Amino acid sequence: MFEKILIANRGEIALRVIRACREMGIRSVAVHSTADSDAMHVRMADESVCIGPNSSTDSYLSVPAIVSACEITGAEAIHPGYGFLSENANFVQVLEDHNITFIGPTAAHIRIMGDKITAKETAKELGIPVVPGSEGGVPDVASALKVAEEIGYPVIIKATAGGGGRGMKVAKGPKDLESAFRTARTEAKAAFGNDEVYIEKYLQKPRHIEIQVFGDGKGQAVHLGERDCSLQRRHQKVFEEAPGPVITPEERARIGKVCADAVAKISYAGAGTIEFLYEDGEFYFIEMNTRLQVEHPVTEAIFGVDLVREQIRVASGLPMSFTQDDLVINGAAIEVRINAEKVPDFAPRPGRVNMFHAPGGLGVRMDSALYSGYSIPPYYDSLIGKLIVHGRDRTEALARLKRALGELIVDGVETTVPLFHDLLEEPQILAGDYNIHWLEKWLVSHYGVKG
Amino acid sequence: MFEKILIANRGEIALRVIRACREMGIRSVAVHSTADSDAMHVRMADESVCIGPNSSTDSYLSVPAIVSACEITGAEAIHPGYGFLSENANFVQVLEDHNITFIGPTAAHIRIMGDKITAKETAKELGIPVVPGSEGGVPDVASALKVAEEIGYPVIIKATAGGGGRGMKVAKGPKDLESAFRTARTEAKAAFGNDEVYIEKYLQKPRHIEIQVFGDGKGQAVHLGERDCSLQRRHQKVFEEAPGPVITPEERARIGKVCADAVAKISYAGAGTIEFLYEDGEFYFIEMNTRLQVEHPVTEAIFGVDLVREQIRVASGLPMSFTQDDLVINGAAIEVRINAEKVPDFAPRPGRVNMFHAPGGLGVRMDSALYSGYSIPPYYDSLIGKLIVHGRDRTEALARLKRALGELIVDGVETTVPLFHDLLEEPQILAGDYNIHWLEKWLVSHYGVKG
Repeated sequence: MFEKILIANRGEIALRVIRACREMGIRSVAVHSTADSDAMHVRMADESVCIGPNSSTDSYLSVPAIVSACEITGAEAIHPGYGFLSENANFVQVLEDHNITFIGPTAAHIRIMGDKITAKETAKELGIPVVPGSEGGVPDVASALKVAEEIGYPVIIKATAGGGGRGMKVAKGPKDLESAFRTARTEAKAAFGNDEVYIEKYLQKPRHIEIQVFGDGKGQAVHLGERDCSLQRRHQKVFEEAPGPVITPEERARIGKVCADAVAKISYAGAGTIEFLYEDGEFYFIEMNTRLQVEHPVTEAIFGVDLVREQIRVASGLPMSFTQDDLVINGAAIEVRINAEKVPDFAPRPGRVNMFHAPGGLGVRMDSALYSGYSIPPYYDSLIGKLIVHGRDRTEALARLKRALGELIVDGVETTVPLFHDLLEEPQILAGDYNIHWLEKWLVSHYGVKG
Repeated sequence: MFEKILIANRGEIALRVIRACREMGIRSVAVHSTADSDAMHVRMADESVCIGPNSSTDSYLSVPAIVSACEITGAEAIHPGYGFLSENANFVQVLEDHNITFIGPTAAHIRIMGDKITAKETAKELGIPVVPGSEGGVPDVASALKVAEEIGYPVIIKATAGGGGRGMKVAKGPKDLESAFRTARTEAKAAFGNDEVYIEKYLQKPRHIEIQVFGDGKGQAVHLGERDCSLQRRHQKVFEEAPGPVITPEERARIGKVCADAVAKISYAGAGTIEFLYEDGEFYFIEMNTRLQVEHPVTEAIFGVDLVREQIRVASGLPMSFTQDDLVINGAAIEVRINAEKVPDFAPRPGRVNMFHAPGGLGVRMDSALYSGYSIPPYYDSLIGKLIVHGRDRTEALARLKRALGELIVDGVETTVPLFHDLLEEPQILAGDYNIHWLEKWLVSHYGVKG
């Protein structure tokens, strides 16, 4: 086992990793920018190294600074947390060259999954379901009708060269298809100078369902069920839960096995998440995140595992400490992301936290780097804490969430706590009846603001 | 279900009950002495009533004041917590007369278990194992030898009228018995003016093992395994764990069934704890506590249940929400009691808490009524918080405990945290190799103080 690990991150995730190190008897090294000298992760680690100025580019994203910090302190391994360098294949390559263990998958796996097209192709090859559609461009209406017939309506026509919604048209049935096809081509030509379009099945009210996988890097892998992270604002998750309120045990077992088999086949190492859109019992691959996710604690809660400990174990060459059969779901868990932002416009609100008081009691977990008197710097992500609750079922978890939110005190800055209080009054949230569009629509109707 | 519950207690246990009420959608009423106007339980409850001055006798123990508070606020039920009026049969009787529901067993059950002799007799009748010994006084050496032969050596000879160690003699074998018997009689006569003595099996290194039971008041009951609370200082538990490190699944199932059957037979209602001394695979009844215990969270952790919610459910007439088969142990949990006391002399240290910062992260539960700026009044129990950790096994729980203790900040007053840091360095604690005498001996050898 490693004697010393450097954590190339800040905030709550740096604390998360330091905690796992401490419980494993491993010394921890924090790195920090000049803006983070008083940060909790610096205070809590066994050692710390200042690696640069406020700017992330010159500190938390600086490969040379982090590698130097490793060499100065003698850290044998690096945990990247999420964000920053966690999915940077070049960083992992540099570490390999310096004989520093990266706690995560290989550079090659990060590279494959980091490229959208290669990722989708790889997923397909590995048997992971992707959104059905035409193979490349569709030349004419007749071909378009044929493809649409095969994959089923509604379909969406997209510009091959496109993005940002231009050149995208939905056809609900064969009657719409011809005009949709022609309009899409015209728009594509005008916008991108290229009128080639392709066709995909159109999902109307999909949910974001992601499968947590874990591999030992030697061909063994398991899945740890799903998380439903459909509640998003500008593609940022704000409320995550496990198990997914609409996923059946059969669906979980089926897609879970597909994912575990896929990562086993490539001898994937450590934690990974395969993200899907989900509609009408079918899963459609979006992407794979080759790192720990922000929302991993809901999975830890319902399976009773420690994913960071497991990452460290596997990176050190040890086998996984659980098998698929050991992984049995116990209750339900919800995480909310508490950001230093003003509701309802979500403008960042860094500043001094006069008093921080975490909720306590049964089934409550607080992951936060806040402390009374801490000043949140304005240079980084606005996530200041994650509140995770666990109950015997979803109803209990929801009640516990409401109770715990009421106990939390972050005096001095505005936070997204009021958003969650409001969400917990919504019958659709209480019923688990939401999709990836729900939150943005609700923000408009409830607060009158564009999400 | 009740609409409003009054909590006849203070400190962390009042918070514990308020939290359960909130999660169940029940309004909570706090009561408080003048010394507790700023207490967290007052701040957190939906309503509060001042019931008297600092002195417990005139506030938290005042039956008329508490009944009045119920009537003023319209609370339909009272949760007594632990301590104070929680095992006062007369209080329960008064509530029955006022048509206020007591969240706990009947006055009759409290009365039976509150009297040592009746409790032991009842336990015996219900099939609960008690310490074997003579039936009443032993008149002469010949009878003493006969009894000792039957129950096996070592035996202890105790004064019927006695207490406090006087008139108590241990005999390791028949050779010692005669002189031990005579000395005990002489001492008893001198100390209590009555030379009658009785004989019991002498346990040399027993552990304190207690079984959590739960009944619906209608003849159904379950057990929730054991807690090992052997680490005690002056009969006060300081460190509790579940499951017990030396209890086998067979022992648990056997004694658990005995206890569940016993409380089912008397239609016991709510939570109860049957305490035993345990040695060499055998359990010997000490007493039954007819209330929630301080250390109930370790049981909640390993069984994933909410005992206070369950108490409230059953008191309202609902059936229990779990059966014996639902109750499966998951991992290991440890609780340490954090007192405002100076280590190593354990002198109380009330005062102002300048900063309170609770530990966070995976598997950590903090039950405390502290907050930054709170002044601990000098009038009540010195317990200021309970830190509970849960891990996949005992080793993980111990590592988590050490980690979490390191994160806890209670600035301004001295606490018993250093005691736990020291205990976690002891190989015997890490091995689970301790008994009811261990801590007091260790306090002498480690700190040079009389426990």
